[in-house]
Amino acid sequence: MLKFLLLKIILPTLVRCVVPVSSDDGDEDELLPVPDLPGKTDPLIGDPDGDISPVTEEMFSSWALFIMLSLLIFALWSSYYLAQRRIRAVHETVLSIFYGMVVGLILRMSPGHYIQSSVTFNSSYFFNILLPPIILNSGYELNQVNFFNNMVSILTFAIPGTFISACVLGIILFLWTALGLESVDISFVDAMSVGATLSATDPVTILSIFNAYKVDPKLYTIIFGESLLNDAISIVMFETCQKFRGQPATIGSIFEGAGLFLMTFSISLVIGVFIGILVALLLKHSHIRRYPQIESCLILLIAYQSYFFSNGCHMSGIVSLLFCGITLKHYAYYNMSRRTQLTIKYIFQLLARLSENFIFIYLGLELFTEVELVYKPMLIIVTAISICIARWCAVFPLSRFVNWMYRIKAQRASSITLGNNVSIPEEIPYNYQVMTFWAGLRGAVGVALALGIQGEFKFTLLAIVLVVVVLTVIVFGGTTAGMLEVLKIKTGCVDENDDSDDEFDIEAVSSANRYNAGQNDVDAPTSRRPYVDNNVNSRDFSVDDAMLQDANTFINQTNSAISLDNSPVLSPQNNENAPSGSTQEGNNLKESISTIFRSDSQWFQNFDDHVLKPVFLDGKPQTNGPSAQNSPSPSGFDSRQK
Amino acid sequence: MLKFLLLKIILPTLVRCVVPVSSDDGDEDELLPVPDLPGKTDPLIGDPDGDISPVTEEMFSSWALFIMLSLLIFALWSSYYLAQRRIRAVHETVLSIFYGMVVGLILRMSPGHYIQSSVTFNSSYFFNILLPPIILNSGYELNQVNFFNNMVSILTFAIPGTFISACVLGIILFLWTALGLESVDISFVDAMSVGATLSATDPVTILSIFNAYKVDPKLYTIIFGESLLNDAISIVMFETCQKFRGQPATIGSIFEGAGLFLMTFSISLVIGVFIGILVALLLKHSHIRRYPQIESCLILLIAYQSYFFSNGCHMSGIVSLLFCGITLKHYAYYNMSRRTQLTIKYIFQLLARLSENFIFIYLGLELFTEVELVYKPMLIIVTAISICIARWCAVFPLSRFVNWMYRIKAQRASSITLGNNVSIPEEIPYNYQVMTFWAGLRGAVGVALALGIQGEFKFTLLAIVLVVVVLTVIVFGGTTAGMLEVLKIKTGCVDENDDSDDEFDIEAVSSANRYNAGQNDVDAPTSRRPYVDNNVNSRDFSVDDAMLQDANTFINQTNSAISLDNSPVLSPQNNENAPSGSTQEGNNLKESISTIFRSDSQWFQNFDDHVLKPVFLDGKPQTNGPSAQNSPSPSGFDSRQK
Repeated sequence: MLKFLLLKIILPTLVRCVVPVSSDDGDEDELLPVPDLPGKTDPLIGDPDGDISPVTEEMFSSWALFIMLSLLIFALWSSYYLAQRRIRAVHETVLSIFYGMVVGLILRMSPGHYIQSSVTFNSSYFFNILLPPIILNSGYELNQVNFFNNMVSILTFAIPGTFISACVLGIILFLWTALGLESVDISFVDAMSVGATLSATDPVTILSIFNAYKVDPKLYTIIFGESLLNDAISIVMFETCQKFRGQPATIGSIFEGAGLFLMTFSISLVIGVFIGILVALLLKHSHIRRYPQIESCLILLIAYQSYFFSNGCHMSGIVSLLFCGITLKHYAYYNMSRRTQLTIKYIFQLLARLSENFIFIYLGLELFTEVELVYKPMLIIVTAISICIARWCAVFPLSRFVNWMYRIKAQRASSITLGNNVSIPEEIPYNYQVMTFWAGLRGAVGVALALGIQGEFKFTLLAIVLVVVVLTVIVFGGTTAGMLEVLKIKTGCVDENDDSDDEFDIEAVSSANRYNAGQNDVDAPTSRRPYVDNNVNSRDFSVDDAMLQDANTFINQTNSAISLDNSPVLSPQNNENAPSGSTQEGNNLKESISTIFRSDSQWFQNFDDHVLKPVFLDGKPQTNGPSAQNSPSPSGFDSRQK
Repeated sequence: MLKFLLLKIILPTLVRCVVPVSSDDGDEDELLPVPDLPGKTDPLIGDPDGDISPVTEEMFSSWALFIMLSLLIFALWSSYYLAQRRIRAVHETVLSIFYGMVVGLILRMSPGHYIQSSVTFNSSYFFNILLPPIILNSGYELNQVNFFNNMVSILTFAIPGTFISACVLGIILFLWTALGLESVDISFVDAMSVGATLSATDPVTILSIFNAYKVDPKLYTIIFGESLLNDAISIVMFETCQKFRGQPATIGSIFEGAGLFLMTFSISLVIGVFIGILVALLLKHSHIRRYPQIESCLILLIAYQSYFFSNGCHMSGIVSLLFCGITLKHYAYYNMSRRTQLTIKYIFQLLARLSENFIFIYLGLELFTEVELVYKPMLIIVTAISICIARWCAVFPLSRFVNWMYRIKAQRASSITLGNNVSIPEEIPYNYQVMTFWAGLRGAVGVALALGIQGEFKFTLLAIVLVVVVLTVIVFGGTTAGMLEVLKIKTGCVDENDDSDDEFDIEAVSSANRYNAGQNDVDAPTSRRPYVDNNVNSRDFSVDDAMLQDANTFINQTNSAISLDNSPVLSPQNNENAPSGSTQEGNNLKESISTIFRSDSQWFQNFDDHVLKPVFLDGKPQTNGPSAQNSPSPSGFDSRQK
């Protein structure tokens, strides 16, 4: 992954671009007039130079930041309003992009090329400031049990899926441009680069809609996992493509590219996991949890380090950061003080949300204010259609492949235990496949990558990517909620694996209450369990009982996945009734199949449970580590008292 | 206050400046080597240009950020180590400055002017990015009861104190340079500017030492309040001085300056309070607390808005932000969801801590890498002595004035109730005065302001300010802990007014435990009270009982302040025993005096209690507002269910 000079252009740029809005855009209610105070027009700096321009810019910089923050506030407030009114068809990110477009359009209409030319989407700013919080939060918030249980599907969609999508798109684009209809003659490498760029699906919009609807955790996890990983994969693919620019493409270079790709991916993964484990060990073997303020600063800084270190080594920072986040949550989390657990969670969430909104505002802005863009309408339409074809080619065959693999596996197992006469449910039913296809909207990662395209048709290709990304966000993002209903995707699911330990997470509690009136009395107390018990027991729990619970919930989950009723309905009661209505044979089947599916990640869970966790985690009662000796009392607080 | 272009120079600058360290500074253990991977040296961008320079810069940018974060991690880790080893003589900020100096020295020694010249302390970065979190956190964390109780002392030190200090320093400097010994001939306005610059005391170092030692809350509050306000005041003074550059200084311009100053200060204050109240009303009259993630983003953004808006209006952003923080804590806090209360607190603290450390690292770096600085040793020594004289002139006469004022007031009251034969204790005893003098170390605000100095002797004056600031931080900051013992300042005080509601605040709990073994059993449970009760009752408590509690603790505090034993000792038991050992007459005296002192802020507390809080706060049971109608149930959670 590439590195860029940080923050050199974007904020001053924004400063220059947004400020004139204060005079032109009178109907924005945040834009308060500048009071003309007597005697206050002299600047602090710039007197001797006698130059008014820097002075004006300086005052404008505050207004620009003020207006940028106002746009963010406006987007967030709209989001609240939508949530409050239960309007789910329009999503926050769609609104953000829309606000950005409105401001961008006003800038475009207003006189002065100075303004328009200064608004550029700066990829260094994006990659160094806006993207890391989102990725880190995604990794940290990832439901690990679900993720590892659906690892096969996720990896299938993420790695070959992104590859197929990029190739299909690249080939279509190359063939179309070779026809010469719009006098755009791009090289095969460029076509593949655009293909890679437009194969990164956006993890933001879809998933917040899914979260709001409490979509079936399995589908959620597959789409989430895929979009997380394919960002990383399309970045690596794009860079691999760029390495072959100007070289003749041979068969050998495909293998070389694949080798580079795999090496980059695995080294980045190792870096991320290593740094995550380092944090866990650091926390375990120090008493830093006595100073939670320092602790949280350090964890945040070290997590960012994984990103910058990986980038500095020409590896993929995004992959490192993602797996650093996952490792932090899996090991380091249990070694943190309770306060740091909350601090880290809240800060990651807040930064991620601000970054997300900012990115979409900025994408909208970019669409109208990038003056150098060359729009080729035909090519854009062709690309828009092609990405649907490419995604289709990736999702449906691979879904069949996954289904086939699981069927073979299940048949082999069931022929041993139950004979051949049972019908095996599909791992990914058809409506899930369509939803996965629909969830393939493209995001800001693509635009940031497209800025790296070089050559004669740079601005043509950038225009294609930008328009297609915005189109998919609006079209697919805007229709996801409706599609969920059309496809009869199971919604209102309480994720039993949800390891939210946050008694303050009102949003989660209220959603659970809304959809599960019946289970409310049982679930609510666990979500709101008082802090003291939780803190004292959390570490013991994490080591001893968590895996037991995981195993139970895993069985529950596979039970519902293979429920013989293959048509998921909207009612949450179905989830409850299906198992009770099944026959004894069905139960046997479920048990045996759940054993098979478990074996996917069982070896790792065992290894993790018996080897890794005792090494990395602190506070297991029977552990004879140094910290256990320091805290003979059963209370978790005692290790803090010297 | 002035505004600057944001982020244009500093990070790229840092990027350039810190990167070469990775090759020169081999003994930094964070600096991992760059693996030389095959086929990974090609850049994403820059191929067609054939230019290696941007490529190198791009890779370096990640390393630069990596190294900057490593320095921060190193400083924080040292801080943990110091805290762990109970080493209080050396402070985190002193270490940060030292690390910066080491790296700066290495840069200075290493070849290439390119590096050295690129390291400049960028005031726009400082004012727009680093300073706001510190000020906001200060305002938010301020102990309001103590602050308002000591308002008279704080305002006396902050406003006339800073003014006296700046004038004394300015006049000494002007007279010294007029002697012409070092061929530096600065104007009176420049001398006054430097005086204003060097009158801003640093709120960071001293106060974290005070916090660690649990210094008497009264002294703590006076010094904290002073250093917070005098930053704002010296900024406004500096700008006022700069307005008179090149003009003949007349008597009229002094009054004009004073008028400007007062207007700027009051308008900024009103902006901050207004925005804080706006947030409180917004939270009260919306249901946004159902969505705590959006809520916390919005509060953070709106708080920053007060800063940028105020700066945009040519007002003092720092004053607005400070009072916005205070208002947020005083009103809006009680309207937030519990989760947002915690999120906001943690985020403010974390950002403030990172900013603080970064600023000090950077100050140290600047000292050696700013090549244009002109060092005039004599002038620096004179200035260093002068700031001590100036602070002496401000602290001691004003302390006597405050003591005199309180004595008059107390005598008048006691002559009515008890006759004239009682000895009135001093409001600010001599050891407190010396400590206030000692706490006058200068901080980064001064350096940031000094960058705004223009004219022929710009770099001479900047060098003076920079060296003096670093000197005071090292000398005064390094000796504060020792000085506390020499002066027999009362330490180990449990602040009864401490309104920390944070059951996760282990640091506070452990400190309290350490110093108050006797009270441990009583205090600990309240610090760790379970969440649910707290949440349900917090709003009722805030409105009904908080003031009652404040009143009680206020009486306790004034009791200890006027305890007839006038030599505070280190033992915390003294605080407990003194009231029980006093006579009946003493008790009467205390009661009457506490009534007098209370009257300082009593009118506001009454007004606040009966008029403002019912208007701004949500959830008072007898309130008939819209939200009360929506939540008929006594539980705080119910308003979230529709």
